Amino acid sequence: MTQRPRAAVVVTGSELVRGERTDRNGPFLAAEALRHGLEPARITIVGDNPAELETVLRESLEADACLVSGGLGPTHDDRTVELLARATGLELVVDEALEAEIEAISRSVAERLRRPYADFAPGVRKQATRPVPAASIGLAGTAPGLVLRAPTGCVVVVLPGPPAELRRLWPNAVASEPMQELLARTRPPGRRVLRLFGLSESAVARALEEAGGDGDGVEATICARDFELHVDLVVEPGAEERADVLEGELVERLERWLFARDERGVEEHVLSLARARGLKLATAESCTGGLVAARLTSIPGSSDVFVGAVVAYADAVKAAELDVPQELLAEHGAVSAEVAEAMAEGARRRLGADLAVSVTGIAGPGGGTEEKPVGLVHIHASGPDGSRARRLDIPGEREQIRARATVTVLHLLRQILEDDTNP
Amino acid sequence: MTQRPRAAVVVTGSELVRGERTDRNGPFLAAEALRHGLEPARITIVGDNPAELETVLRESLEADACLVSGGLGPTHDDRTVELLARATGLELVVDEALEAEIEAISRSVAERLRRPYADFAPGVRKQATRPVPAASIGLAGTAPGLVLRAPTGCVVVVLPGPPAELRRLWPNAVASEPMQELLARTRPPGRRVLRLFGLSESAVARALEEAGGDGDGVEATICARDFELHVDLVVEPGAEERADVLEGELVERLERWLFARDERGVEEHVLSLARARGLKLATAESCTGGLVAARLTSIPGSSDVFVGAVVAYADAVKAAELDVPQELLAEHGAVSAEVAEAMAEGARRRLGADLAVSVTGIAGPGGGTEEKPVGLVHIHASGPDGSRARRLDIPGEREQIRARATVTVLHLLRQILEDDTNP
Repeated sequence: MTQRPRAAVVVTGSELVRGERTDRNGPFLAAEALRHGLEPARITIVGDNPAELETVLRESLEADACLVSGGLGPTHDDRTVELLARATGLELVVDEALEAEIEAISRSVAERLRRPYADFAPGVRKQATRPVPAASIGLAGTAPGLVLRAPTGCVVVVLPGPPAELRRLWPNAVASEPMQELLARTRPPGRRVLRLFGLSESAVARALEEAGGDGDGVEATICARDFELHVDLVVEPGAEERADVLEGELVERLERWLFARDERGVEEHVLSLARARGLKLATAESCTGGLVAARLTSIPGSSDVFVGAVVAYADAVKAAELDVPQELLAEHGAVSAEVAEAMAEGARRRLGADLAVSVTGIAGPGGGTEEKPVGLVHIHASGPDGSRARRLDIPGEREQIRARATVTVLHLLRQILEDDTNP
Repeated sequence: MTQRPRAAVVVTGSELVRGERTDRNGPFLAAEALRHGLEPARITIVGDNPAELETVLRESLEADACLVSGGLGPTHDDRTVELLARATGLELVVDEALEAEIEAISRSVAERLRRPYADFAPGVRKQATRPVPAASIGLAGTAPGLVLRAPTGCVVVVLPGPPAELRRLWPNAVASEPMQELLARTRPPGRRVLRLFGLSESAVARALEEAGGDGDGVEATICARDFELHVDLVVEPGAEERADVLEGELVERLERWLFARDERGVEEHVLSLARARGLKLATAESCTGGLVAARLTSIPGSSDVFVGAVVAYADAVKAAELDVPQELLAEHGAVSAEVAEAMAEGARRRLGADLAVSVTGIAGPGGGTEEKPVGLVHIHASGPDGSRARRLDIPGEREQIRARATVTVLHLLRQILEDDTNP
């Protein structure tokens, strides 16, 4: 059992607690807490119902740190500060220096919108109201982030809801005196990451068991994400040797499926491998509709490796833009190993790439037959040192079939680049 | 203030509470609760620390319904059922009928993996253990979903963690006797949705204020999502007239930016509009790298409208596959209104489309100049009834620039299709 100080994350937002939008602040704050040596104990998402929010804050104040996001706006629905004062029993005051700071911003907004400042004044006063003691750690628009120590001893950080603003003010919260005092008691854990592709979660669990399991200052989490498996080791200071042994045992057992020991995604590894060999890449996509190209181009600097793609959804486009022979389409159908090969060859030649990969399949829900059911996908990579093909039968629905085909194509590219680099 | 019975959602998972993965079950269960007339009061994400999980369950049992996801696996880390028994004070028993059902599945798994069934037996026994009273609502793999009524009166639903399995078993939970009894007390609210594009959140807030605001059985939420603004009205039974008035006032003020009054995304509207007019679509993408094509092809049946795309990342591909003249590239640069126009025209002609849209821009972080900074994007739509061009200056980082360009391109397609349909 861990001895780390506990952090409770509280996220406010009616649209979040109703499931209309997915929260991004909770995971960010929890991961940051862990990185700084706190144990993220819980993330609670709550709406703007005052009784509910006050209860959640009260419960969260029992942790060593309470990280709150949202509810700092100028309107009466934004009640975080008021309810925090109630939950902590702290008095509220208008901070005059803060009020002057917020007023300056609001006056220029009023001017731009050609509205009288008087419309803004009550909101400014509300946003300049803070518990005693509490210190502003900077403004997001007109909303101040706050840090304070509650009478329970809990360090409370209050941050604005918009994710970009929250991330911008977070370092100021970490640097604040109450947080620094808390973090002086922590010993940030180390992290090891193993990223695997092509095996089952239970196979990884068995390897972990055979490797001796976690414990003794090393916590292992196996996480299936985006059709890959990630093993995260959280290593307490002092347990590094134990972690080395466990990591070594795991690598020995799982080497065949291991593709990374860092946080970079498979598309980054593909681009690095191609860049190192001076190879240009292209894709020819049917059922993935551009998802492979979109993943590759999500990485800054991809343009020095990736030249382009043809998304050939219609057969006429496969023929015209990728030189897939009409006879091949007629004889084998668009979803076939033969057409996948012709698409890859065509992309390589037409787009001037050294290595091209193709994908053609039936994403469903319609279009499946007994012979070629929904989920059948052919992929083909064609490069300077030869080619490689795969037939996939992917379970699930359209979104899952497309996503899994995309990941598998990226891993096929990675494998061909790795093997050709170390034959 | 609402009188709906309260629902508390509890999501378990160490990788979720540490922010290593984003939870999808909480938002799903909350939205479902609301749809059935319950008020989602909070979503709590918690790890496998037993004390923490028991406390969260205890707190959540104060609601009228407690919806729990995860922690039902066969290993000792999966403690949801055990801790639920402790939090409710209910006794645990091995359900023999359930054990027989799980054993049958485990035996075939054991056979397939060529491992002795004895390895599985303790896990089977654990997964067949349930509180009294509790009823199984079906298996996800070997994990049973459970429904029970706690001594507090709270209806507890326990569902497996994998999102697809959770969604599959959820209707069984709704149909169970304890849930039906609870839902008999609810009056599911109505929902109205307005989807807007091209204006600011504060402009929508002002329109809502001018329209009389919410209240009296109508709750309005303004939600910025994917660079669009969605106004959700949750309407209590009996408040339909008030909702009609508010909705009418909002539509009157916001008509210019309103593109949908349903849950379908802009890509679905684009495909419907094109289908109705018998038009074929294509895209020519540079900085978005295939994201527009991927959005369009995410919709089942898109193949009868969308023919394909050229992702022209390299200038050579713009020239070879989209017939963009080399002189145009040399004179104006790849990121220019002129090249955007040539790309759209080229895609239309080369891919055999009636309406094609292009996008070329600087997604950053590199590649910007004083004259053409990061975030500069040119888009162009070329169709049978003419063409339309836009220059965008998008703030933020690479991911945001690409995402916002994608949405804007889809809305440009929608607008040109709408205007040409109703000139």
